[in-house]
Amino acid sequence: MAKEVTNKEENYSLWYNNLVTKADLAENSAVRGCMVIKPYGYAIWEKMQFQLDRMFKETGHVNAYFPLFIPKSFLSKEAEHVEGFAKECAVVTHHRLMASPDGKGIVVDPDARLEEELVIRPTSETIIWNTYKNWIKSYRDLPLLVNQWANVVRWEMRTRLFLRTTEFLWQEGHTAHETQGEAIEETERMVNVYAKFAREYMAMPVIVGRKSESERFAGAVDTLCIEAMMQDGKALQAGTSHFLGQNFAKAFDVQFATKEGNLDYVWATSWGVSTRLMGALVMAHSDNNGLVIPPKLAPIQVVMVPLFKNDTDNNAIIDRIEQIKKSLEDSGISVKIDSRDNLRSGFKFSEWELKGVPVRVVIGSRDMENNTAEVARRDTMTKEILPAASLVEHIKTLLVQIQENIYDKALRFREANTFKVDNYIEFRERLEEGGFFLCHWDGTAETEEKIKEETKATIRCIPLDNNDDEPGFCIYSGKPSKRRVIFARAY
Amino acid sequence: MAKEVTNKEENYSLWYNNLVTKADLAENSAVRGCMVIKPYGYAIWEKMQFQLDRMFKETGHVNAYFPLFIPKSFLSKEAEHVEGFAKECAVVTHHRLMASPDGKGIVVDPDARLEEELVIRPTSETIIWNTYKNWIKSYRDLPLLVNQWANVVRWEMRTRLFLRTTEFLWQEGHTAHETQGEAIEETERMVNVYAKFAREYMAMPVIVGRKSESERFAGAVDTLCIEAMMQDGKALQAGTSHFLGQNFAKAFDVQFATKEGNLDYVWATSWGVSTRLMGALVMAHSDNNGLVIPPKLAPIQVVMVPLFKNDTDNNAIIDRIEQIKKSLEDSGISVKIDSRDNLRSGFKFSEWELKGVPVRVVIGSRDMENNTAEVARRDTMTKEILPAASLVEHIKTLLVQIQENIYDKALRFREANTFKVDNYIEFRERLEEGGFFLCHWDGTAETEEKIKEETKATIRCIPLDNNDDEPGFCIYSGKPSKRRVIFARAY
Repeated sequence: MAKEVTNKEENYSLWYNNLVTKADLAENSAVRGCMVIKPYGYAIWEKMQFQLDRMFKETGHVNAYFPLFIPKSFLSKEAEHVEGFAKECAVVTHHRLMASPDGKGIVVDPDARLEEELVIRPTSETIIWNTYKNWIKSYRDLPLLVNQWANVVRWEMRTRLFLRTTEFLWQEGHTAHETQGEAIEETERMVNVYAKFAREYMAMPVIVGRKSESERFAGAVDTLCIEAMMQDGKALQAGTSHFLGQNFAKAFDVQFATKEGNLDYVWATSWGVSTRLMGALVMAHSDNNGLVIPPKLAPIQVVMVPLFKNDTDNNAIIDRIEQIKKSLEDSGISVKIDSRDNLRSGFKFSEWELKGVPVRVVIGSRDMENNTAEVARRDTMTKEILPAASLVEHIKTLLVQIQENIYDKALRFREANTFKVDNYIEFRERLEEGGFFLCHWDGTAETEEKIKEETKATIRCIPLDNNDDEPGFCIYSGKPSKRRVIFARAY
Repeated sequence: MAKEVTNKEENYSLWYNNLVTKADLAENSAVRGCMVIKPYGYAIWEKMQFQLDRMFKETGHVNAYFPLFIPKSFLSKEAEHVEGFAKECAVVTHHRLMASPDGKGIVVDPDARLEEELVIRPTSETIIWNTYKNWIKSYRDLPLLVNQWANVVRWEMRTRLFLRTTEFLWQEGHTAHETQGEAIEETERMVNVYAKFAREYMAMPVIVGRKSESERFAGAVDTLCIEAMMQDGKALQAGTSHFLGQNFAKAFDVQFATKEGNLDYVWATSWGVSTRLMGALVMAHSDNNGLVIPPKLAPIQVVMVPLFKNDTDNNAIIDRIEQIKKSLEDSGISVKIDSRDNLRSGFKFSEWELKGVPVRVVIGSRDMENNTAEVARRDTMTKEILPAASLVEHIKTLLVQIQENIYDKALRFREANTFKVDNYIEFRERLEEGGFFLCHWDGTAETEEKIKEETKATIRCIPLDNNDDEPGFCIYSGKPSKRRVIFARAY
C-alpha cells in the first residue's frame, strides 16, 4: 500500500487525520491552528467554489470585497453579536516592526501602537452593515444581494484540519431587503441552495432545519441550517443561513425611504459555508482505503495507468492511452495519466485509491491484443474488463452512477442510523453508538442545556421538512411537545 | 450628466478618484487605508482573475492556500527580505477581547498576549518556503509550481484606491526548481504571461524589462517587470516576476536529492499581480466621460436602453430588446437592459458611459418602424443606425474592434510620449510633461539615487526587447553606458 491509513473502526479521528494529510488535502502549518491547503485539496475547494458561486449568481447575487480588519468598536454595536464573536479573535495592536535594540532579530515598535485596535474579521456583518449605511437610501437600492469570498479568523482553542481551524476560507452572503417577508424568503432560498449543493455535488444527504434559540447565530432572529451525518454517526453542521431581522440595520442605523415615502430599517440576512465542507466531504464518504470523492467534485475523475512490460513496445500502450484520454477530455472528463516509471502499478493503484479518484483505467499488453481495458471504480472497489471501443461512453455513464451511488450509500447510512426514541434512558444508551435521534423536546433552553450537560448531545435542528410532527412528550421533562427535533453529538 | 467627473486635464488625481468611486468600482472603508471593492469593480477583478488563473494553469501551475499569519521570527530569516518587508505591517499581539471593566464596550484582554507576535502576510515567501522544506525531498518533487490567490497587508502611509492600499488582493506564484536555468526560464515565462494578459485582456501596452538592483524585490537576485504608461505620462509597475536564486532555500534549509544523488539547494521564483491592475486599467483608458473598459474585461459588454413613448405600445420595444439580448447572449456577449422608468434616457446614457460599457444599443419607436437600432461605442463616443437583422453580427465584430482600438490608442499615446534624451537638462525639463525617457545610465546605484533625488524619476526598467541597445554615455555622469534604460516618474 502507498501510505498506511488507520482503520476508521479502530480510531475514527486518526483515520480522518490520516486521510487529510496522506491524501495531500491539507496539513498543519507553523502557525498554531492554521492549515496549509495543499494543491489537491485546494482543487476540490475550487470546484466547490465554482458551483456555489454559479448558484449564487443564478439567484441574483453579486460578489464584492470588504476589509479584513474590523475596528474593535464595531463589534460592540450589536449587543448579542459582541457576545458571540468578540471573544477569541486575532487583535492587531501595532503597525510596525523594528530591528531589535540588541541586534538580534526584530521586535514590535512600541511607538507604532494603533489608536484603535483592529480585529481580524471573525465574520463581516459589522463592517458590511457599516458600509451598507451609505449604499442604501431608498427602496430602489433594495434588495442588495452581495456575497464575499474571504478568509476569516476565530481563535479556536482546539483545532482540527478543515473542521475547526483558526483561519478558514468561506463565503459570506449579506443581503438587505425592504420587507421582513422578503428577507425570510431569502434566508430559506439560500439554505435550500446549500442543501442542493450538498446533495447534488457533494453527494451528501442533508437535513434542512431550524436551530433552537441557544444554537442560533449571535445577532440572528432565526438560523436555518443543513446538517449531515458523518460515518461515526456524529452530526456536522455544513451551512447556515440567518434571518437577522432589523438588528444590524438598527445597530448601524441603516434606514431607507419606502415606496410610501416613510423611513424604515432594512431587513437583513447572512449565510455562509466554509472549508469545513472539505472535512464533511472526507468524513461522509471515505473508507479505509482512502478518500472517496464524488465525480462532480473530483479534480481527477479518471486516472489511467499503463502496464509496461520489459522488452516490448510500450509506446503503443502510451499511444492508446493518450488517445482515450483525449476522447474523455473531449467529453469534459478530467484525466490523469500515471506513467511514472519508478513505481510498481500496485503502488500506483493504492495511491489513487487513497486520493479517491472515482475511476481507474488500466491498459496492458493483453488489453492491446484484445482491444480491451480494465476499468475499476473507487466507490465499490470493483473492476471489469471492457471493450476499448465503448470505453468513453461507459465511463460517462459510470461517473453518473458513482455520483448517485455515493449519495445513496450515505443516505442509507443516515436512515439506518436515525432513530425515533421516546425514553431518556434508552436515548442515553443508544447515543453511545452514534446517530440522529428524533425526540420530543419541551422547547425550553433549560431542558436543552441539561441534556447537553448530561449527554454531550445537542439539538442539531428542528427539521423543516419533517412529516413526523405529531405531538408528544419531552424525553427529558415529560412536558408536552409539538414536534420531534434531532438530537446528536456533533463536530 | 449622471455624476460629475472632474476633467483629467484639470486634476488628474481627482479625475481618477472620481472615476473609481462614481463608477462604483471601490470606495474607502472605515478602516484607514483599506478599501471596499464594490460589486461592479469586483466583477472586473473576477474577469481578470479568471483569465490569469487559466493562463497559470495552462503553464502547469496549481493553486494552494497558506496561512494569513507569519510568525515574526520567519521574517528575519532572509537578510534582505526582512529589510524590505518587516517594517510597516500589521502585527497581531493578542488573541482575545473582553468586556471592559468599566462596563463600556470591549478591551483587549491583557492575559491573552501571544508568545510570539504574528504578522499579517505582506507577501508569503517565508511561510511558503518554511512549508516547502517538508514537501521537497528529491528531484522527483520538482518543479513545484504553486500559486496562491490571497489578501496581503502592507501598512502604507499614503494610500489611494487600488493603487496603494493597506490591504489588497493579489496572486503570488512560488515555484521551486532543480536548476538555476529552469528557475530563470520560469521567471521569464511568467513575466511574459503578465505581458500577454496586459496586452490581450487589459488592452494595455506594457514594456517588459529588468529592474535595476535598487528597485529589485527584497530577497531577489533578479526582478523582471511589466511597466505601463498612464495618461498623465507616469509609469505604473503592473506586475513583477522574481528570480530568487537559492536565497530562500538557504534561509529555510530546503535541499533536495539530485538525480546524481547529491544534496543541493532548490532554485526559486516568485511572481505576482494585484488589484493595482484595476487602477492601471482605469488610468490607461478612461476619459472625461468616465471609464473605458476593454470588452474582454467588461462585466457588461452591451447595455440596451429602450426609448419609451407615452401612450404607445412599449411592450413591442421590450420584446424586441429581449429578443436581441437573447441572441447576443447566445453569442457569449453579456448584456444588460436598462428599463428603469424613473430616469430619462440621457441620464442613463451618461451613467453607462461613466461605467465604461463598451457598446450601447438604443431602440425607440422609429427603430421599430424601420427595423433598426442605434449603436453607440464607448471608446470613440460615435454612433450609427443599423439594420436590426445584422445587429448581432455587427456587435460581435465591433467588440473585437473596440478591444483593438483601445490597445492601439494606448500604444500610440505611449509612443508619442516616449523620448530618447541624451542631455540631463533637457531630461529634467521634459520630465515635467511626463513620459518615458530612454536614457543612458552608467549602471551605478549612486547615479540612480542622485537622479531620483533631483527629479523624482526612477529607472522603471531595462527593457528586455530593446533593439536600441547601442552604447553611449550616462546622461548624469557622462560615464560609458551599454544600453538605454527607461526613466519615468511612477505610481
